[in-house]
Amino acid sequence: MSFVLLNNQITTRENVKIDMEDRGYNFGDGIYEVIPIYDSKTFSMDEHLQRFEESAAKIEIKLPYDKSLLKRLLNDLKEKNNITNGIIYIQMTRGVSPRAHLYERNVEGLITGFCREMPFPVEQKHSGINVFLTADIRWLRCDIKTINLLGNTMVKRKATDENCHEAIMHRDGTLTEGSSSNLFIVKDKILYTHPATNLILNGITRQKVIKLANENDLTVVEETFTLKQLREADEAFITSTTQEITPITSVFGDIQANFTVGPITKALQQFFKECVEKEAI
Amino acid sequence: MSFVLLNNQITTRENVKIDMEDRGYNFGDGIYEVIPIYDSKTFSMDEHLQRFEESAAKIEIKLPYDKSLLKRLLNDLKEKNNITNGIIYIQMTRGVSPRAHLYERNVEGLITGFCREMPFPVEQKHSGINVFLTADIRWLRCDIKTINLLGNTMVKRKATDENCHEAIMHRDGTLTEGSSSNLFIVKDKILYTHPATNLILNGITRQKVIKLANENDLTVVEETFTLKQLREADEAFITSTTQEITPITSVFGDIQANFTVGPITKALQQFFKECVEKEAI
Repeated sequence: MSFVLLNNQITTRENVKIDMEDRGYNFGDGIYEVIPIYDSKTFSMDEHLQRFEESAAKIEIKLPYDKSLLKRLLNDLKEKNNITNGIIYIQMTRGVSPRAHLYERNVEGLITGFCREMPFPVEQKHSGINVFLTADIRWLRCDIKTINLLGNTMVKRKATDENCHEAIMHRDGTLTEGSSSNLFIVKDKILYTHPATNLILNGITRQKVIKLANENDLTVVEETFTLKQLREADEAFITSTTQEITPITSVFGDIQANFTVGPITKALQQFFKECVEKEAI
Repeated sequence: MSFVLLNNQITTRENVKIDMEDRGYNFGDGIYEVIPIYDSKTFSMDEHLQRFEESAAKIEIKLPYDKSLLKRLLNDLKEKNNITNGIIYIQMTRGVSPRAHLYERNVEGLITGFCREMPFPVEQKHSGINVFLTADIRWLRCDIKTINLLGNTMVKRKATDENCHEAIMHRDGTLTEGSSSNLFIVKDKILYTHPATNLILNGITRQKVIKLANENDLTVVEETFTLKQLREADEAFITSTTQEITPITSVFGDIQANFTVGPITKALQQFFKECVEKEAI
């Protein structure tokens, strides 16, 4: 991690000095994105930057420069760090001001970013993972990709304590999503996933999966589903930028369930792989 | 703000360099306190540091040194900055680690703090304030004084847009608290305030007010109350470290209501004033 992004400059890590009254540091007042790199090429950068801009609009922070420049900078960052397979992380906070709850509108945000080599989880995609099911205690604006992530980190900790790879959550028996992933189930060849409301983050991989499913004559129902439906599902999987499409084989916690890695999950993994090969640039 | 606290050292602001992968900056993974200074003396420092320790325990961050040393450092900070009336702000994050949701338990936190001159709002305590009533969209662990405060800042922004001094919130018609304050109503000489559950932050001033009320033969009922009860109340006020006891004269937003600055609010303000004079050290 030698080179990082600081506003509109690629610089070295030592040159980045975040102020103790950056609103990101005092209020979690900021947003972020994680963009995947495959074989030295980025995948779905435009979709991520589009959502970055949307998150910024939702909390009324202004991008300090054009999206096209941001894209160029992120590509430079990737090249300078010579990343083959991994991620670009980018965040933007409302920047520095004397600490007070009230925020100013549409000030130019402070952007930081870094790259990291991070191999994609081949084994997990093949064999599946355990997940831990627990109550969703997060706020009611999960549609914004903000750095207010303490609730997410707490359930991730809990899941790890229970030897599970990811936490999945429910509100009063209605499944929402994972701590850093979206959740799908398959029943009678139909895919179900929580609609893109204020209660989930509308993942880029989630959107890709829905698109790929539709293109391949699979039906996707974007409706809420219950614990009972989860237990009775034929297949279940999570999606995320770093997890891609990862099958769930066991659920622990508020209910117990077991699944095999099923044909629809495998088919979607294949479609997704082809999509990456075609679209990564 | 020339001198600040960085871990166990009083230093100048220029020497503080927060890392871009401090978990406070990437996840809002940290806690804070605001301690009042009256006439160059601190008030209720012990209670604030006690809660600081409790918040730390709830998110499993370890204080890097004794509370007694922390107290000494905060007093030094106040003296070096020569603050007469104002606040000490202190926060602790889980510190720096490569960005990942999963946190390590009981690592030593990174402490930062500063002081600020900030006169207490005399006029508002006398004449009262407008508040804006809106839905409480925050997470379900509001009992932890964390820096995950985006929900609070968003309603504060909304309240200000509506020419209100503070936002107060409700969950499905049950009042919870303000964006940075607790809420009390008075009906037939009895005080009502939300119980100290996971849905509110148990304010130090809230606790003082309850204690002072009890000592002065006023009944305090720590039970939830509804929008209807708010509308029909005789008096209403908010409490916080920086607002002390501030009467509400008008409610806008989800309901409309008006109150006069009543005798019980005034009596409590007087008890509080005497308490500060007696206990500030």
